[in-house]
Amino acid sequence: MTVAIVGLGQTSVGEHWDVSLRHLAWQAIERALDDAATTDIDALYVGNMLASKSSHQDHLGALIADYSGLRGVEAVAVDAGEASGAVAMRQAVLAVMSGQIRTALVVGVEKATDQTGSESLSSQSTGLDADYETVHGLTPAAMAGLMMRRYMHENEVGVAEFANFSVNAHANGGKNPLAMFRNRFRAEKFTKAPLVADPVSLFDASPVGDGAAAVVITSQERAMDMVPQPVRVSGSAVATDAFALADRQNPLWLKAVELSSERALRQAGLAIEDVNLFELHDSYTIMSTLALEAMGLADPGRGWKLAAEENILDGRLPMSTFGGLKARGNPLGATGIYQIVEVAHQLRGSAGANQVADVKVGLAQNIGGTGGTAVTHVLQID
Amino acid sequence: MTVAIVGLGQTSVGEHWDVSLRHLAWQAIERALDDAATTDIDALYVGNMLASKSSHQDHLGALIADYSGLRGVEAVAVDAGEASGAVAMRQAVLAVMSGQIRTALVVGVEKATDQTGSESLSSQSTGLDADYETVHGLTPAAMAGLMMRRYMHENEVGVAEFANFSVNAHANGGKNPLAMFRNRFRAEKFTKAPLVADPVSLFDASPVGDGAAAVVITSQERAMDMVPQPVRVSGSAVATDAFALADRQNPLWLKAVELSSERALRQAGLAIEDVNLFELHDSYTIMSTLALEAMGLADPGRGWKLAAEENILDGRLPMSTFGGLKARGNPLGATGIYQIVEVAHQLRGSAGANQVADVKVGLAQNIGGTGGTAVTHVLQID
Repeated sequence: MTVAIVGLGQTSVGEHWDVSLRHLAWQAIERALDDAATTDIDALYVGNMLASKSSHQDHLGALIADYSGLRGVEAVAVDAGEASGAVAMRQAVLAVMSGQIRTALVVGVEKATDQTGSESLSSQSTGLDADYETVHGLTPAAMAGLMMRRYMHENEVGVAEFANFSVNAHANGGKNPLAMFRNRFRAEKFTKAPLVADPVSLFDASPVGDGAAAVVITSQERAMDMVPQPVRVSGSAVATDAFALADRQNPLWLKAVELSSERALRQAGLAIEDVNLFELHDSYTIMSTLALEAMGLADPGRGWKLAAEENILDGRLPMSTFGGLKARGNPLGATGIYQIVEVAHQLRGSAGANQVADVKVGLAQNIGGTGGTAVTHVLQID
Repeated sequence: MTVAIVGLGQTSVGEHWDVSLRHLAWQAIERALDDAATTDIDALYVGNMLASKSSHQDHLGALIADYSGLRGVEAVAVDAGEASGAVAMRQAVLAVMSGQIRTALVVGVEKATDQTGSESLSSQSTGLDADYETVHGLTPAAMAGLMMRRYMHENEVGVAEFANFSVNAHANGGKNPLAMFRNRFRAEKFTKAPLVADPVSLFDASPVGDGAAAVVITSQERAMDMVPQPVRVSGSAVATDAFALADRQNPLWLKAVELSSERALRQAGLAIEDVNLFELHDSYTIMSTLALEAMGLADPGRGWKLAAEENILDGRLPMSTFGGLKARGNPLGATGIYQIVEVAHQLRGSAGANQVADVKVGLAQNIGGTGGTAVTHVLQID
């Protein structure tokens, strides 16, 4: 059975201190249900990373179903660290494909800014290995620092080579009214940014923020009756890798990215060359670089060149078209759904100032931890 | 497509201070894979409630897949409070039914005893409503106390009427080498137990412990080639209710239990009278009482009579046959998988000293929070 997206909703990414977790989720859900013009939902899938530690709240499926007026429906929360959003999407896709669920709602929601300092760092590090990484004081930024330093050493490249990933993201974020950061910046400023975890600077790292995004999915057949432009989910795949970075044969090869994009493209019957647009997991510039390499879009050690050569701005594969994690902001467990909403808008031609021309095949990729989990979705419009 | 269970594994429930979360999960997984005589697994579904707060560890899908030698497979952790285990099972069932996953492994794992005191209470209360319940100091036991007091008032019954649920559980737990409590006790002692949250006493409440349980599932067709006695999963349903107890029209009616058992039985094409055995969520005697009423097994206000009349010991509907949450122990996010493993053993005739005669249809029911989520599985053998 083919699955299609019939509703999209999202809030701005930033600091939402004035609303509760459930209300933030509802804001995105309300828009997605309005967009799909339905309230007839059989199941809810919630992607979230932090709530257990930051809000002392688990059991988000029932909580958000109830608050959204969907009392009684099947509901579940799923977790795969920063990949929680896209993994929730995957569960919904499987549920619709099974024939047991007719219409599913997926929401990614995160309230990240209620905590500060070491509490916040502790919550945001739960996607890493608590026994072998976090216990030594490692954080997501520190892990990215280790990977970036090693990459620079092995491939003899400097910090400046990574700049255009962020220049591109901010250029696109500047046109997205929902983006957390809308300022543009020039590549020359990139190497002067304050360090977060040497060599990762403020301009390599995506800002963690609050946000919620939602999609409604159903069978392609039913979708045709519901909306003028259903977006087909032609590929959906989750893959895993060695959990701790030190356990990987090659710490600069994102095996889960390779596997999940291979599986998703195989489902869609497409090759990577068929993809017109790529919402990648640019949590750090090194993660963008490594993802491009693991997907075969660049040779090993040369992923940064796609940024340096500005292919990503107006070139053959537009990326981070709404600002990516870097400028739209990174609401962790919600990020994967933002990516899917953005690709779907591009395919429908409803991307406003961020619209890319002639998009028929879009790819969204969400990564948990340092690549322990990667999720790839292929979206298409006919 | 019909789904069947081909492998079962479980650890003892108790205090497992000597092993890590991942190793505890592996102990159950190893047994389930051995039982199924396969290592050919396409996806892993993990049920867990506490790890985020108690072990500072999320992202359990990739973590446990890696540690179990399944690097690369699709993996996800799911959460629905104390119903996390059965909800993980539901995701696996949907995945196999979708045709995308051939063989799935489900593990419920919990390390609950690493924390003590208020930290432990805080972790164990995340299945309740943080904004409207936990914030006022309410805990799972306190919520059960409110429900039991209201029930006793409305129906004019005393504490002693609930005794036989626990007498039965301990009688059965005494024969289960994996049970946390193997002592028998007499009904006369029931009313003399120390109070946990008036009127809930130590003998009403299930003990929280560490444990892991795992099952391997695949299509019924493939299962027939793999093992001599596949157990059919003929019904699998999740339902939700008002999240906070105070929001329910009737705080003594478990609507999610009613809905999920109706849905699961409808899938199986069975009536409640066809069920031979019921592993219910006896976290508190009041929860057992209310579940029996919501399922139509007893009239409202009369669920306790099924215990008082000892129907549950040798009568028409054996319950908690391995000791239930009360005596086998309650490893929270793992509990739902223990229940499924136990029903499957009864159906296969491999329940040892706990074997019940002539079991053809067994039902397992797992509840999150005060009933915000309920999950019912119908298992059968031909």
